Parts: sequence; C-alpha cells; structure tokens
Amino acid sequence: MRADASPAHVFATDLGPPGSRLTLAPDESHYVARVIRARPGDLLTATNGRGARASVEVVSAGRDVDVVVRALEQVPRPGPIALWCGAPEGDRADWLVEKLAELGVSEFQPVDTERVSWSRFDARQGRWQRLALAGLKQSQQAWRLEIKPPRALADLLAAPRAAVACYVGSPAGQRAADLRPPVGPVIGAIGPSSGFSEPELEALSRCDFKPVRFGAQRLRTETAALAMGVWWASQEA
Amino acid sequence: MRADASPAHVFATDLGPPGSRLTLAPDESHYVARVIRARPGDLLTATNGRGARASVEVVSAGRDVDVVVRALEQVPRPGPIALWCGAPEGDRADWLVEKLAELGVSEFQPVDTERVSWSRFDARQGRWQRLALAGLKQSQQAWRLEIKPPRALADLLAAPRAAVACYVGSPAGQRAADLRPPVGPVIGAIGPSSGFSEPELEALSRCDFKPVRFGAQRLRTETAALAMGVWWASQEA
Repeated sequence: MRADASPAHVFATDLGPPGSRLTLAPDESHYVARVIRARPGDLLTATNGRGARASVEVVSAGRDVDVVVRALEQVPRPGPIALWCGAPEGDRADWLVEKLAELGVSEFQPVDTERVSWSRFDARQGRWQRLALAGLKQSQQAWRLEIKPPRALADLLAAPRAAVACYVGSPAGQRAADLRPPVGPVIGAIGPSSGFSEPELEALSRCDFKPVRFGAQRLRTETAALAMGVWWASQEA
Repeated sequence: MRADASPAHVFATDLGPPGSRLTLAPDESHYVARVIRARPGDLLTATNGRGARASVEVVSAGRDVDVVVRALEQVPRPGPIALWCGAPEGDRADWLVEKLAELGVSEFQPVDTERVSWSRFDARQGRWQRLALAGLKQSQQAWRLEIKPPRALADLLAAPRAAVACYVGSPAGQRAADLRPPVGPVIGAIGPSSGFSEPELEALSRCDFKPVRFGAQRLRTETAALAMGVWWASQEA
C-alpha cells in the first residue's frame, strides 16, 4: 500500500530484450519527466500489459523520454477471472473498471440482460481503457484488464467456455468464505442494477454457475462485482 | 442483487411499537410519495439504523408521508468491524463510505498518520452521512455505518480496544483466504495513499495488528479498505 515503496511503473507496448532502447509514448513520457521527475540514470519498472515486466533505465528525459531495457521477464498470467457484469446505474462502471484493474481481474465482459442493456459503450470505452491502464500502473502488475464489448447473456452462455468454475453473485448463494475457487480460469457473473430475471438465473444455473454471496445484505451491481474481484484476488498466491 | 425483489426500505429515527404512527422526515417522504409512488395501504420496511427493523403501512402519502408500524423486531448487531483508514487521494473517500455502508461495516474511523492527515472533515461529514444512509437503505440493513471524526494513529493505539482481532492491510501479509477472523469485534487498519511509516507499522505490530493481503498487487487506499470490508462481509452468516 506504500506509494513510495517501489520504483514507478510505466506502460510501454514495445519492450524489447535487454539492451534495446525505446521512446515512451507521450502520456508516459510526461509522467516520467514531469510528474515523478525522473532523470537520466534513474531506474523504473515497465510492462506491456501482456505479461512482460522490465527494469528500464532512463537515458533522456526531455519532452520524449527514452529508456534502455536492463532486464526483462515474462510474468505468468495469474489464474484468469472473467467478470460478466450487467449494467450498474449511471456512471458507476467507471470506478468499477479502475478497481477491477487494480485487483488483477483479467477480463471485463459487459453483459446485456433482459432488463438492462449497456449504453454508450463506444463513448465510454476510451475512458475505461485509460482507467484500466491507470489501475495496471498503480498496482504494478504485468497483465492489463481486457475490456470486451457488451454481449447478450444468452450469446455468452451459448458460446464455448474454458472456465473450470463459474459463479453468480446472489444474496441466496453460498458464503464466499466457505468456497475456494479451483485453480484455472474462472467466470463470475453479476446481475444488472435491477437483477437477472428468473429465466436468466435458471439459464445460469443450467450452465453450472454456482450462487455465491458476499454478506447477507443486498449489494449494488458494482459493489457485488467488486466483491467478486476481491474474493478472487484474495485467493491468489 | 435484485432492486425489485423486496419492498422499499426507509429510514425513520423514531420507530415505536406496533400500532404507533409516525410522519417520515421530508427526504423519506419525498422518496416514498414521489419516487416509488407508494399509496395508502402499501407496505414498506423501515429501520432506525440502530438495529430496529419494522414493517410499516403507508396511511397517507401527500407532502408528508405517515405510516403505522405493523411489526417491529430488533436485529442483533453483526460482528462489528471498525475500519481505521488513512486518507486516500482526492475525493476517493466518498465512494468508499458508500461501499462500506453497503457492506455492513460498523464504523469508519479516519486515521491521521505521520505522512497524511484527513482534511476538510467537517465539510465532508454531511455528505458522508448521506452516503452512509443511502448505503443502509440500498442494502436493506438495520445497522448504519457510524462515521467518526479523524484521530491520530498513536491516540487510537493508546486507547483501550475491545477487539478480538486486529488486522492491517499489507501486500506482505498473510493471504486473506487463509485467515478467518474470530467471532466478535474486529479492527481493520489501512494506510493512507503514501502508506504507513515504518514506525507506524512497528507500533501496529506491537499492538497485535496482523498483516493481511488481498492479492499480490499494490492497492490504492480505498481499494484496500474496501477489500477489508468485503473480506469481513464474506464471513458473515
């Protein structure tokens, strides 16, 4: 939790092998040169959001920041969790995306349901991508939250799934503390602000989505989605 | 998670025994008469935020809404958790307060630390109280999040504590999924945006605060505080 405990973590799409030199993108350059005021010789960590984690050395810190890769490793992908999420009220998805990225959730899959569909995805996507990137850097991870376009629940359920376990948030479900997800890809489904319909809950049940609860109380969509992310992150090695 | 699965839940400070009649406060009256458009004869649930949960019947729904208590129970306080929380960046405490209230956290104790103090508590308190109330109603609980004025960590540690277990969020701590808090009052401490200082961490350790982690990654203050709340809510019966 200490902001000053580790070197700054930057995003760079094109991390090469040790010795290779690259110019950071404008946003990252600004952050390195103007916000944290790094100077030539300073060491940073960098990731491409797809598992590469590098130690890089600043070689020039003007308007564009150039760095040289000093060490590079590929971090294995943590047991992936895909979050299928119905639409919350208003703009509550914005902070949800940021928090899921921080918690290391692998995939955010907006789900259109009988009662509620996602609106303005195209307009919101840019902002969500920036929030996902900020979450990645903040939490110093090597894997970036992937943001998918909305799909209908029925389509998602009809498509093949590689998951070893699937869960659906429900106040009537099993207590989360009593469940330990198996190792491997997991899917967690959370209903929209007005909930999944009965036929949707039955369809999820037929597809082996196990109900799980995070407390006895009724949670808002984004709170339940976050609880699913915390539950999953809490199992990580 | 279904907004339409239960009757509306309203807040009323002065719930009397069955048969007693009361007038709801202006905000609650507006909600009942104008937002959910309840009519005489409709049943609602009501709480005073201190454990009373009532079934009430609307008897008049004009500018002021009058209700009669039909049934009243006292809900036992869930195993209380007090969250000692350092200051996050910016206004991030606003949604934290809302989420802690939804999750059923008992007490929000802002903590002033060596590196960061809370600012503008007096100005923010009104908004936090409203958010706590909204969270209580949303989650249909009977106990309201209590919001305390900020205190210095050293003062809190010097005061007597009734807690059966104390935890501090730390990426170097034990994995949350492997820990089960004992039954009884619990304290969870989360550092501010720039983290607890080394002397503060040592003081917490001397006072038996056990480090616990929610994933391998570094979390923002408000995310870690929320993770602590989810972890605790997930143990609830």
